[in-house]
Amino acid sequence: MNQNWLSKFPPLPEDFSGIGQPIDLARWELSRFLPESAFSLKVEPEMGDAFLLSGSTITGGETGVLYGAYALLRHLQGGAPLPASSRPRYPLRMINCWDNMDGSVERGYAGRSLFFEGGQFVYHPARLRHLGRMMASVGLNVLCINNVNVHEPAQGLLDELLPDLSALADLFRPFGVRLMVSVDFSMPLRAGLATADPLDGRVQTWWAQTAARVYREVPDLAGFLVKADSEGRPGPFTYGRSHAEGANLLARALKPFGGVLVWRCFVYNCRQDWRDASVDRPKAAFDTYQPLDGQFDENVILQIKNGPFDFQVREPVSPLLLSMEKTNMALEVQLAQEYTGQQIDLYTMAPLWKEIFADLEPDRLSAVAAVSNLGRDDNFFGHPLAAANFFAFGLLTWNPEISPEETVSLWIALTYDLDASSRQTLLRWMMNSRRIYEKYTAPLGLGWMITPHSHYGPNPSGYEYDLWGTYHRASHTAVGIDRTAAGTGYLTQYPPELQARYQNASSCPDLLLLFFHRLPYDFVMKDGRTLIQRIYDDHFEGAAEAAELEKALAAIPFPEPDRTVILERAEKQRLNAENWRDVINTFFHRLSDLPDARGRTIYP
Amino acid sequence: MNQNWLSKFPPLPEDFSGIGQPIDLARWELSRFLPESAFSLKVEPEMGDAFLLSGSTITGGETGVLYGAYALLRHLQGGAPLPASSRPRYPLRMINCWDNMDGSVERGYAGRSLFFEGGQFVYHPARLRHLGRMMASVGLNVLCINNVNVHEPAQGLLDELLPDLSALADLFRPFGVRLMVSVDFSMPLRAGLATADPLDGRVQTWWAQTAARVYREVPDLAGFLVKADSEGRPGPFTYGRSHAEGANLLARALKPFGGVLVWRCFVYNCRQDWRDASVDRPKAAFDTYQPLDGQFDENVILQIKNGPFDFQVREPVSPLLLSMEKTNMALEVQLAQEYTGQQIDLYTMAPLWKEIFADLEPDRLSAVAAVSNLGRDDNFFGHPLAAANFFAFGLLTWNPEISPEETVSLWIALTYDLDASSRQTLLRWMMNSRRIYEKYTAPLGLGWMITPHSHYGPNPSGYEYDLWGTYHRASHTAVGIDRTAAGTGYLTQYPPELQARYQNASSCPDLLLLFFHRLPYDFVMKDGRTLIQRIYDDHFEGAAEAAELEKALAAIPFPEPDRTVILERAEKQRLNAENWRDVINTFFHRLSDLPDARGRTIYP
Repeated sequence: MNQNWLSKFPPLPEDFSGIGQPIDLARWELSRFLPESAFSLKVEPEMGDAFLLSGSTITGGETGVLYGAYALLRHLQGGAPLPASSRPRYPLRMINCWDNMDGSVERGYAGRSLFFEGGQFVYHPARLRHLGRMMASVGLNVLCINNVNVHEPAQGLLDELLPDLSALADLFRPFGVRLMVSVDFSMPLRAGLATADPLDGRVQTWWAQTAARVYREVPDLAGFLVKADSEGRPGPFTYGRSHAEGANLLARALKPFGGVLVWRCFVYNCRQDWRDASVDRPKAAFDTYQPLDGQFDENVILQIKNGPFDFQVREPVSPLLLSMEKTNMALEVQLAQEYTGQQIDLYTMAPLWKEIFADLEPDRLSAVAAVSNLGRDDNFFGHPLAAANFFAFGLLTWNPEISPEETVSLWIALTYDLDASSRQTLLRWMMNSRRIYEKYTAPLGLGWMITPHSHYGPNPSGYEYDLWGTYHRASHTAVGIDRTAAGTGYLTQYPPELQARYQNASSCPDLLLLFFHRLPYDFVMKDGRTLIQRIYDDHFEGAAEAAELEKALAAIPFPEPDRTVILERAEKQRLNAENWRDVINTFFHRLSDLPDARGRTIYP
Repeated sequence: MNQNWLSKFPPLPEDFSGIGQPIDLARWELSRFLPESAFSLKVEPEMGDAFLLSGSTITGGETGVLYGAYALLRHLQGGAPLPASSRPRYPLRMINCWDNMDGSVERGYAGRSLFFEGGQFVYHPARLRHLGRMMASVGLNVLCINNVNVHEPAQGLLDELLPDLSALADLFRPFGVRLMVSVDFSMPLRAGLATADPLDGRVQTWWAQTAARVYREVPDLAGFLVKADSEGRPGPFTYGRSHAEGANLLARALKPFGGVLVWRCFVYNCRQDWRDASVDRPKAAFDTYQPLDGQFDENVILQIKNGPFDFQVREPVSPLLLSMEKTNMALEVQLAQEYTGQQIDLYTMAPLWKEIFADLEPDRLSAVAAVSNLGRDDNFFGHPLAAANFFAFGLLTWNPEISPEETVSLWIALTYDLDASSRQTLLRWMMNSRRIYEKYTAPLGLGWMITPHSHYGPNPSGYEYDLWGTYHRASHTAVGIDRTAAGTGYLTQYPPELQARYQNASSCPDLLLLFFHRLPYDFVMKDGRTLIQRIYDDHFEGAAEAAELEKALAAIPFPEPDRTVILERAEKQRLNAENWRDVINTFFHRLSDLPDARGRTIYP
């Protein structure tokens, strides 16, 4: 089993009986590399996750000493800078698994569930301890184990499966990792109540009793995660209640036990009619939640996706993240490469997150969450290099100002023993990988030109007449949707500075041009090229770069089995990129009838 | 339970112990309507399925007396003409169920499987006897119970599930219905052999022993049905053998027991590259099978779909059906409305079959088969009017020259007690229903502009860049594929008379124009309209007619529960037709930039 950025760490002990608390683990980890006399650990509980490094002493909270130990080991193993003191920016640093209890993983690209099979908890403790170690080593501390789309029998996690949940919480406790569970808003109905109305006293009592039962078994449960009133999920709208009323219902049940209620703000009309141009899906989250600012209890966290759509290769930052003044918010990103190559195509996410934090003051947030890219594959991530996204996300939750280059080069140094030139090559291609994927897929912020359902490979009009609100409206003359005040008005949800940035097509950043504007194919870009020529050029470049990427990766002496897996996937990526190039170019050529100025092959 | 065209027949007896043979059933059925003294039955076994009606005496083979009884009852109940004698055109008149043993039905639109659930035989004997009665009453005599895509545990039908298969055969025997099973070419591998090569002696022995085992349990099994080397199924190509070698392998195993081997000719490259315009999927069946003419054993039947694609609303007759001189062939049609409205939209098929037989000499065929539209819904067919397709198919297998109007009006008379005006209205709309569906869906023989996977609703480019060979190549200026000798050459697979009919765009029938030709939008049709205007007009007309259809059906006094189901579906059809109209019109308008000459609404 490849251990990725922990590859230089020895395996965890089979017998874990002596390791019950994070400090035990910290001592065990450090003593693999240092004589016991060379370090000391000192717990000051009020320090929590924070730590101080002073001489040979690590002082920290109960979990802080463990984070301090891993910071020291990252320094020793990978040359990471050694801080004198450190505390995480966010108290909750969360991984959301979309695992179903039948063993499948929604949008999972690394094999089946690490936790479940056949409706039951089925796992290898050693593998899950390794997951705990991966999380702790990069500062992650909350693991939501089941899909936000809660399918039976996952509802039993609050009931007949509680003993199993408790055992799993015990397993993760030495790693400072607390569990969270996704719950279904309609659970009271399953329990026999006639309603799940948040203002109904019986419903409130049922949730209070349920929370009490759960916390008896798992006293340090982080809380509940809910997706309500979205994509077919039940929610407070069923009862004519607001999402604040819905979220507070659960938050009040959790409050006596210190739990948080994480409420996903992924709500939109998913029965849209493409003919109705007055509805614009990116407006939905802001329209639904912004008016509720101030109505949420203090232990509610609204979890908001980075962009207003759904994890496309490029979206502007969600305006909702910029507009809630009196509400706890978590930023949600997606490590699972649902729309971004599915852990076949190389796609390094740290640059994307950097862009988000360029527009989003980190202190607006209370927490950060990522949809998991984990699975039962030997290497946990499907693509060995996809591990870098998990790694970098962890460091980002601790310090959102960290540079993408720093996290990726540290990950490389920890994972592989490569010569300096190979390290540089790998870093460069990993840093470029998002832009390459972007070039050969949907152009300039348009998004969604992807195969429906599978979300891999091109289908430029696959979502064009569908119910999901994801339209490009490409015609013979023009493409895109005007989202300024003159169009759908989405842009007016932003603060003035961002409105100014995107308002005019002549000054709007190229890579979001077609997100905000409808433009004719002969629109002249800032560099003098026409829009259509820019689309063609990007697609020829993107596919050419995917071919170069394959060659570059082949020249790097990765160890096996990583090398074989990386090269198999690089070949698939090259073919995928060629197909994207040709489909997108043909699509626009058939529509516009405009030739490539350089006469390259566009299939008829 | 609605009993459809048997609605005036009393329920079958609960206790079937006295009805072991078709003659017993014939006597029971007749005695519901006539005094025992008013008829007599006389079996002359060598008459087989044929019968004579003479005065009060029905003389026929063991099954013939039953068919004679039903002919008499159709006459008494519905006014069908009473023949003095009759024999079916085809000895095998087959229904192919695509039922999986998990209870699902591939392309099933009437509920789950009538036979299976949870990997086992699970059925209600009374419902299956009613199915047997439906089949016998229209002359159908073979029922293939499991999906041609054979999934585990269906392979057990030849093995551990044989006792269950035998019991089911017993159940259907009084109805003159013999079972058939779909088998997987690779079954010897499952049994532990190292190969499934048809020329390997061990493989031949294994199939011979398997057939012997099966026929010990089910002596009157009709035979095996195989889909090989297609859409991911294993087949003789795996071993470098021809399909004649593959089919003969199984046919020789069945021969000692009088079984037939039905071999589906649905073979094509389903990993096509849309960029390679030299490959044309409609050519595949002819290219694969025609050179093998004369190489198949006499108990092999090649089962060939009516058209060269896959059950689109309009296709020319498959050239393979016109070109095999020394091979037994079965025509395959699809009662399941996979691409034709899924038993939501009204779609009467008898006119389609009539067109096939206009080009296909009936005596070229040895058998006729239809993919089932049956399921566990109360009414067996989802849409009550979809039963007419099953009914009409039965009569067609007996007499392919029967007129569509005759079968449909007989079905109406048997099914509903309606006044003459309502009967006329219903007949007219049922006869028009295919043309209505055609008008609002893919235009003029183009096909495939349907939502991938689900195959309901429009997605004009959903299959355009896919692997299935189903392209329209619509551009700013033109649409369609040239399939003449100057293009892909598909047309050259036809006899000269059909080549002449389709060769020139100026004389090619309108409704197949875009199947055979690539044409500019300003091409002038025979009636003087441009191609684009014809497309717009058809789509406005089709949707308007679907709206009229809804009104017409609402005015007919159908009994409940049929009325409710029919009107619910008619409303869905109207909405579907409106969406098709708008999507197809918008698609072509965006491409061509050409306006509707009549200024009707085309969404931008």
